[in-house]
Amino acid sequence: MKVGYQGVKGSYSEQALKKYFSELDEKYESFSDIYEKSVDKFEDVFKGVVAGNFRYGVLPIENSSTGAIFDVYDLLKVYKCKIVGETYISVRHHLMGIKGSTIEDIKEVYSHPQGFEQSKGYLARFEGWKLIPYYNTAMSAAYVANNQDKRLGAIASSRAAEIYDLEVLAEEINCSNYNTTRFVIIALEEQPTKGEKISLIFSTKHQAGALFDALRYLAEEKINMVKIESRPIKDRPFEYLFYIDFEGDLEDNNIRRAIKKMKENCSYFKLLGNYTKGERNG
Amino acid sequence: MKVGYQGVKGSYSEQALKKYFSELDEKYESFSDIYEKSVDKFEDVFKGVVAGNFRYGVLPIENSSTGAIFDVYDLLKVYKCKIVGETYISVRHHLMGIKGSTIEDIKEVYSHPQGFEQSKGYLARFEGWKLIPYYNTAMSAAYVANNQDKRLGAIASSRAAEIYDLEVLAEEINCSNYNTTRFVIIALEEQPTKGEKISLIFSTKHQAGALFDALRYLAEEKINMVKIESRPIKDRPFEYLFYIDFEGDLEDNNIRRAIKKMKENCSYFKLLGNYTKGERNG
Repeated sequence: MKVGYQGVKGSYSEQALKKYFSELDEKYESFSDIYEKSVDKFEDVFKGVVAGNFRYGVLPIENSSTGAIFDVYDLLKVYKCKIVGETYISVRHHLMGIKGSTIEDIKEVYSHPQGFEQSKGYLARFEGWKLIPYYNTAMSAAYVANNQDKRLGAIASSRAAEIYDLEVLAEEINCSNYNTTRFVIIALEEQPTKGEKISLIFSTKHQAGALFDALRYLAEEKINMVKIESRPIKDRPFEYLFYIDFEGDLEDNNIRRAIKKMKENCSYFKLLGNYTKGERNG
Repeated sequence: MKVGYQGVKGSYSEQALKKYFSELDEKYESFSDIYEKSVDKFEDVFKGVVAGNFRYGVLPIENSSTGAIFDVYDLLKVYKCKIVGETYISVRHHLMGIKGSTIEDIKEVYSHPQGFEQSKGYLARFEGWKLIPYYNTAMSAAYVANNQDKRLGAIASSRAAEIYDLEVLAEEINCSNYNTTRFVIIALEEQPTKGEKISLIFSTKHQAGALFDALRYLAEEKINMVKIESRPIKDRPFEYLFYIDFEGDLEDNNIRRAIKKMKENCSYFKLLGNYTKGERNG
């Protein structure tokens, strides 16, 4: 069974993939034949799932310090994939260089822009360092390893340091002690799991109070909304799509009623999925 | 009078600055002695305003195609600045190279990540091009000009092409015909202008329906909310700050009542400003 993720070995997406399926494995004993397939771009994960090349895809959607990962939100609108699960990964960034290098050697640091953003406080101490945005954290580690230049550093996970045989020069440089990324697992079809969380997209008619009305359908049914994210609608300038997550199962009567009203009254509606909640710690 | 903006000459921020103050000039004839001061980072604009080095700062906050500019949202929470105005700038990206270069010469393209994102459709036609993220669009143009290498291209404005003496190789490569960025003007104190739009930040108690309740105070007073954006709260994982924009003047009775209720019931509340609406076209 092929599962697609963006990045290379040692990326946080690969960690999320391993964590999610090993936990499922414990419960169902049915995920022992996983073949991990890395791709270059988030969109390649969606394409692979839609084309049937991947049974599942794993994608980061939100970080506790830096917020939504927009590309993934936008792609969820475009592709016919369902969210079938979620998992949380603790993100611990380390500064690393080639074996034998020291912090004093470092002149240029490679990482994903979010790696820099999440390590802002630490990096502020080194004004002379040139920060160079790169595809992702693990590829930054690979880049430094390939160049074998003492002046180059990468911000990435301890697993990336191991895989690419790099020396950790500073541990846990992320600003917030609790730096966690939420990942979603996508597939072509809904899975027969207990529904605890529902994700959907909607847009409202462009009139005063329309967003409030849409949220009212949830509030009236005592549904707990845990997240709202807005994204621009491409050809309707400064109008928005809303992505919401709330607790419940699609079979619950209050959820059915609320969703029926939203469908009737929203100018756009797309159900993304109903899935088991991930554990936040671990 | 010094006004700070991020970037270099030829940036969209500089265009926004010129547009906003020349329009004010027409109305009030009081902004003729503007001294534009460019800085490296968005945060430097805030720091300059707080330190009194800049009377005003100009910052991009939202693009019609790619959405919110998070860094600026997050800094509005941290710094004691007021939003005193807004203006909209049409963003027309062009591909440019040094004089004498052609599209066939191009191997590497420099731009801000948003420049790539907004020109995605065009760039998809050139699979071989290496896209290198750079500080901003105008600095990308400056970089290409400094290197005088036919293989390098930049995605930037026509003004940047002029300033850095580059040749436009492809015009208007942005995906959406209507690609507009909204800029805000910040200052230390509110300005005595007619209030048409109000921006504020709040967070709710962490309980079911709390966001809905906060929005209800606006809906009950028939206030038109035009925008909601959510951002993570650093030390409360997966809880959120909400940034909202709505129409009105702080002196209006319905606005006073709604704001009073929000202040009483929200766990965090910060008024960002009350200002004249910008014109969207032009």
